Amino acid sequence: MTDEVLNPGALIEQESLWSRLMELAKAGATASGGVNRQAFSAADVQARQLLVQWGREHGLAPYQDEIGNLYLRCEGQDPDAAPVMSGSHLDSQPKGGKFDGAYGVVAALEAVSAIRAAGLELRRPLEVVAWSNEEGSRFQPGTMGSGVFTGVMEIDELLPIIDSTGVTLEAALSQTLAAMDGIPHRVGDSPPAAYVEAHIEQGPVLENAGLPIGVVTGTQGLRWFRVEVTGEAAHAGTTPNEQRRDALKAAAALVTELNAVLTDEQDTVRFTVGRFEIEPNSPSTIPDRVLFTIDLRHRDSKTLERLTREIETRCTDTYLRCTVHTSRTEDVLPTDFHPQVTSAVKRSCESLQLPFEELLSGAGHDAMLLARVCPSGMIFVPCRNGVSHNESEYAEPTDLTAGARVLANALVSLARQ
Amino acid sequence: MTDEVLNPGALIEQESLWSRLMELAKAGATASGGVNRQAFSAADVQARQLLVQWGREHGLAPYQDEIGNLYLRCEGQDPDAAPVMSGSHLDSQPKGGKFDGAYGVVAALEAVSAIRAAGLELRRPLEVVAWSNEEGSRFQPGTMGSGVFTGVMEIDELLPIIDSTGVTLEAALSQTLAAMDGIPHRVGDSPPAAYVEAHIEQGPVLENAGLPIGVVTGTQGLRWFRVEVTGEAAHAGTTPNEQRRDALKAAAALVTELNAVLTDEQDTVRFTVGRFEIEPNSPSTIPDRVLFTIDLRHRDSKTLERLTREIETRCTDTYLRCTVHTSRTEDVLPTDFHPQVTSAVKRSCESLQLPFEELLSGAGHDAMLLARVCPSGMIFVPCRNGVSHNESEYAEPTDLTAGARVLANALVSLARQ
Repeated sequence: MTDEVLNPGALIEQESLWSRLMELAKAGATASGGVNRQAFSAADVQARQLLVQWGREHGLAPYQDEIGNLYLRCEGQDPDAAPVMSGSHLDSQPKGGKFDGAYGVVAALEAVSAIRAAGLELRRPLEVVAWSNEEGSRFQPGTMGSGVFTGVMEIDELLPIIDSTGVTLEAALSQTLAAMDGIPHRVGDSPPAAYVEAHIEQGPVLENAGLPIGVVTGTQGLRWFRVEVTGEAAHAGTTPNEQRRDALKAAAALVTELNAVLTDEQDTVRFTVGRFEIEPNSPSTIPDRVLFTIDLRHRDSKTLERLTREIETRCTDTYLRCTVHTSRTEDVLPTDFHPQVTSAVKRSCESLQLPFEELLSGAGHDAMLLARVCPSGMIFVPCRNGVSHNESEYAEPTDLTAGARVLANALVSLARQ
Repeated sequence: MTDEVLNPGALIEQESLWSRLMELAKAGATASGGVNRQAFSAADVQARQLLVQWGREHGLAPYQDEIGNLYLRCEGQDPDAAPVMSGSHLDSQPKGGKFDGAYGVVAALEAVSAIRAAGLELRRPLEVVAWSNEEGSRFQPGTMGSGVFTGVMEIDELLPIIDSTGVTLEAALSQTLAAMDGIPHRVGDSPPAAYVEAHIEQGPVLENAGLPIGVVTGTQGLRWFRVEVTGEAAHAGTTPNEQRRDALKAAAALVTELNAVLTDEQDTVRFTVGRFEIEPNSPSTIPDRVLFTIDLRHRDSKTLERLTREIETRCTDTYLRCTVHTSRTEDVLPTDFHPQVTSAVKRSCESLQLPFEELLSGAGHDAMLLARVCPSGMIFVPCRNGVSHNESEYAEPTDLTAGARVLANALVSLARQ
């Protein structure tokens, strides 16, 4: 059997892949055509159940673990060999799109199904995986599923975390696991042999270059901060300026200052205040408390460190007579993906005669976590205008199919090693 | 009967007044010692029921109207004469205190009860009133109860208004009215003969001057604005600065600019952004929408007009590549209170030998609305550090009692006219 004939990707049907994505997008569909399928919500459960059903239809056995990661397993010739895994996440942002995460799961399902349909006998088992709570929009931090799987996070430390309505992760997770009743616990703690994740690019590089495939060589580093500004509530109509300790006034000025400072000429720094909440949030009361998050990313560790010092220096002690307290809630170093995986992906592109480019991921992904325990990599496909985390997120069916085909053939190559 | 002996205020017992205030404060009590009793909430209903019960114990007949204003009536010698009214509101800010509003209602109840206890026969009926939704924190605008009563607002235009959870005023109001079942509708549409409202000052003047009573000669003008900033949601990790339309970045800079401009050397301008909400409010998504309110107050109409132009000019069209839309949601001119009422209050202070000062109200009150239909005025008592709209709001029992006594004697004088 030569490499040339190992082309199960050719069996992947565009119509099947697309209709699965559209079917999944009904779970948590929003009025504006997007998806609100936050982690451990009813919509998330609906998507999980759909995935299990699809897996069973293709002879893949479902498993799950304590953090709710969902696995669909296809046995290999050597049942004791570490599996090759592929997948992504089913949860979305509150105003997310149909492709971020969902595509990687569906592409892995299509790829593994095609490999089975081709009757290929591989040494290693294959596992399709849907990692829990990658987005971190409801429960922070994100990448919890892959975080616990790789031992980077401790589940006991995550369980008490609450969402903005006061629901604990423990409660939401156990409700999800209860809804997925009857699915056995995944056995085995040894790391996978390799991990490959397909994903929309969420950036403009491939679209601008007119290329269907990006071979991802690594990810940016990321830091999250939680900044709390505390002033004093008082009556808006009677309190003179000189007596005010207005937490919103201070926070708005601080965010404006940070926006001015956390930038560079080459436009490589990614600085975002995405969450911002004030108390008591009443028109005629001077706010006494603002809580906001900072999402900071850069490809270079040293720059990330320098910008962190910039943030921590400015968001400390007092600001416009309010007290400011800052803590770091997430810290992910830039990741280099493994040549074993990137090579397999490149060979797969070449055999399928699909042009590609090597690039870096701007977004964080579960693959960053997996890279800590096994050779890992990612396959990007273009998305319209580079837009994601938005209800208008869109990717072309032909590009999505190309990505799944590249994935299928790369999985074969990795599972034979 | 001479003016000298008309001193029912002397019958007011400090212990009774204080214990009623503490009892009322249990309705919506917060863990930090404040009150969250927003309009038409369960806590608001609880307070209304308590007031009706107290009124009945003192022989006062309860009535209510279509907007939920609650009246406790004491008949006069001439049942056809227009009543003299006194009261305030029972609703609070989300993190409000025990005295704002509640004091004026309890003081009126104590005053009218004392007048009855003194066996005084007055020409005019007396009515204790609790106006609905003065604060406007849950349903905007505020002063709805007095607004509808005075014909300044139309109830049909208010009913569709929703709170931040999507509940309509109509639903919340009808739930409140249903809970107050069996209370007859107030009869008569003619304006009152006079209105007097007791209130904590919510400012530092009386405390700094060491005076127990303020005779309020008028109120500041007030304008509310609703500013909506619209950008575009996108991924925080991948979207370059030059492609961003970050609604929070724009709103924070706009608020900072407004804070710098809406100020004066004499510190007479009151400018506050008290409500500020962002969407989708997720750490790794660039916000696409911010909604904030502006509360602007000044004693002088022309200055208010000039500052309004300042706001409307700056909050329009585009700002940092986001679109900005501004609307005026409330517009109240500065009010001068009526000499008939301010004189009655001053004479009452003199007869009780309580020192007082004339002052202007920084806050808006139901009395501003009443002033449009009848001679109106207010009595202020000091509050600690001038703080209100805050859970730590506090006033001294002796000052509260002094204010209620001044009110009682002023009501007698007005009800004999």
